Amino acid sequence: MSTPVYFDCDTGIDDALALAYLVAQPHADLRGIGTVSGNVDAAQAARNTLDLLAVLGRDDVPVAVGEHDFLTHPYDGGAPHVHGANGIGGARLEAADRTVDGRSAAQLLVDLAHQHPGALRVVAVGPLTNLARALELEPRLPGLVASVTVMGGAALAPGNVSPVAEANIANDPEAAQAVVSAGWPVTLVPLDVTMAHVLEQAHLDRLAAAGQEAPRVLASMLGQYFEFYRDIFGRACSAMHDPLAVAVALGTAVPDAAPRVPVVVDTGDGPGRGQTICDLRGRYRGLADHPEATCRVVLSLGTDFAEDLTRALTAPVAATAAAGA
Amino acid sequence: MSTPVYFDCDTGIDDALALAYLVAQPHADLRGIGTVSGNVDAAQAARNTLDLLAVLGRDDVPVAVGEHDFLTHPYDGGAPHVHGANGIGGARLEAADRTVDGRSAAQLLVDLAHQHPGALRVVAVGPLTNLARALELEPRLPGLVASVTVMGGAALAPGNVSPVAEANIANDPEAAQAVVSAGWPVTLVPLDVTMAHVLEQAHLDRLAAAGQEAPRVLASMLGQYFEFYRDIFGRACSAMHDPLAVAVALGTAVPDAAPRVPVVVDTGDGPGRGQTICDLRGRYRGLADHPEATCRVVLSLGTDFAEDLTRALTAPVAATAAAGA
Repeated sequence: MSTPVYFDCDTGIDDALALAYLVAQPHADLRGIGTVSGNVDAAQAARNTLDLLAVLGRDDVPVAVGEHDFLTHPYDGGAPHVHGANGIGGARLEAADRTVDGRSAAQLLVDLAHQHPGALRVVAVGPLTNLARALELEPRLPGLVASVTVMGGAALAPGNVSPVAEANIANDPEAAQAVVSAGWPVTLVPLDVTMAHVLEQAHLDRLAAAGQEAPRVLASMLGQYFEFYRDIFGRACSAMHDPLAVAVALGTAVPDAAPRVPVVVDTGDGPGRGQTICDLRGRYRGLADHPEATCRVVLSLGTDFAEDLTRALTAPVAATAAAGA
Repeated sequence: MSTPVYFDCDTGIDDALALAYLVAQPHADLRGIGTVSGNVDAAQAARNTLDLLAVLGRDDVPVAVGEHDFLTHPYDGGAPHVHGANGIGGARLEAADRTVDGRSAAQLLVDLAHQHPGALRVVAVGPLTNLARALELEPRLPGLVASVTVMGGAALAPGNVSPVAEANIANDPEAAQAVVSAGWPVTLVPLDVTMAHVLEQAHLDRLAAAGQEAPRVLASMLGQYFEFYRDIFGRACSAMHDPLAVAVALGTAVPDAAPRVPVVVDTGDGPGRGQTICDLRGRYRGLADHPEATCRVVLSLGTDFAEDLTRALTAPVAATAAAGA
């Protein structure tokens, strides 16, 4: 049984890996992609996405350019120190032989939700501006989608752009608050779990040595990312933020601990701005789901996701898809 | 060599244990106590403290009543559901045969700092209002004390009065911010470590069965506290917040991990109010001290503090002190 998916991204090196992982899943039916400013601006993210989809043999997937600016403040230039000036670590992809969908990302999401009522899985791995705009556009949206999985936030782990805030949420806290409070089933995949699943040099070497084009292209992006993480981890490696969100959304990674708890985003102007405040006070007696809460927070995953990801990206099925490009 | 100590408290069941532990340490020279509203109001905390000092044979220690209200808002009635209406779990102590010092707690602290320049250790286990007032009273105070150890805050652990805020800090965030930013060497003993060191029924039984009066009195207070923690831990037991701060201050408990990192208190009116925001982003490469930071944050302790505490409270030295009362 195939699962219709809308993917919202700010491609981005780990977004690129997430997209490749997503199209490698036989049961996922990727129906559309919206881009948003974050790692790079929304237009550059769309270019990167189109070009990468060509490598992946998926020129059939519509790509819509989403919000350039955030709900209450302008885009400020992204994270070239993390993802490189072009967002994909300086990798030069052949320009795709097509252009973007004419709709906004928010409109594409709303349209897909109506086409697949109750079935669409939304996976968002950038700032949540497009999702917030879609909620404005179609107030019935929460009742139309099956699930919303977000790479973002930090529950009990430190943040990455402030002591308590993670970049996707910190870029647009107001949008994030709209998304976590909309009443639809949200799963947060925060730094607590993404920083615990790291791609090492040996994984990168396997991607680079693969027979197919796609993993080799991804490997060519990862040098920049590995260097950025040298300061964080004390060695060249990289967190797998966005691919892990895709895996959780599709059920190919099953968390050990993912309690459903109250979540609120700090939208003030103080030192906590952009923090995802998750109520985990129950942890001393064992974390149970709060009956009223609509957000799951993934805290840990017992499986070896870096290995699973490397296998998926170098598997024959990915090769077949790439060969079709 | 004896260490002069000023103890600031809102007695409080675990404050009572902390005070008993403090006077049981032969190298600690307890020179004065200030009370503050928190678990109970400052006046009731002073009564509890005077009566407990009589049991402990330490009628020589001056007790000054400190601030009833917090810097920017009034005291709101304390935590009778945790500590009982009288703050000491309903235990009825014989009224001490003396009264409080005429000075404010802030003045007593300033006086002691001048009497022991560079030597005084300040241990604060309630809201930090008195310490903030003392900083106003004597701007040179940070250069006069040896150390400030605070039971309070939550770094990566959940809070206890909100998802991110601990009670002592949440009661007076403005005072806490003044204390952590004053430039003196502060050690925070937050919920991260205090919730990991729990007094169990077997420890309580040993206190209740002790030959001396003091541990039996303390045991009589702990029933209320154990019942409160049944909801938190799923069993009757209790965290040892305040005694652990005393032990860290005196060096009788030596933390495994206590990095010196930037700390700021959220003093806004949003959902993060009262959070101690500690910059622990360096943890993935091993937590090093930040060169500019003046706050240590105790994250873990490898020793069995509940056992150490129980032994100290039932040791012959405590009995001797009690006998002198």
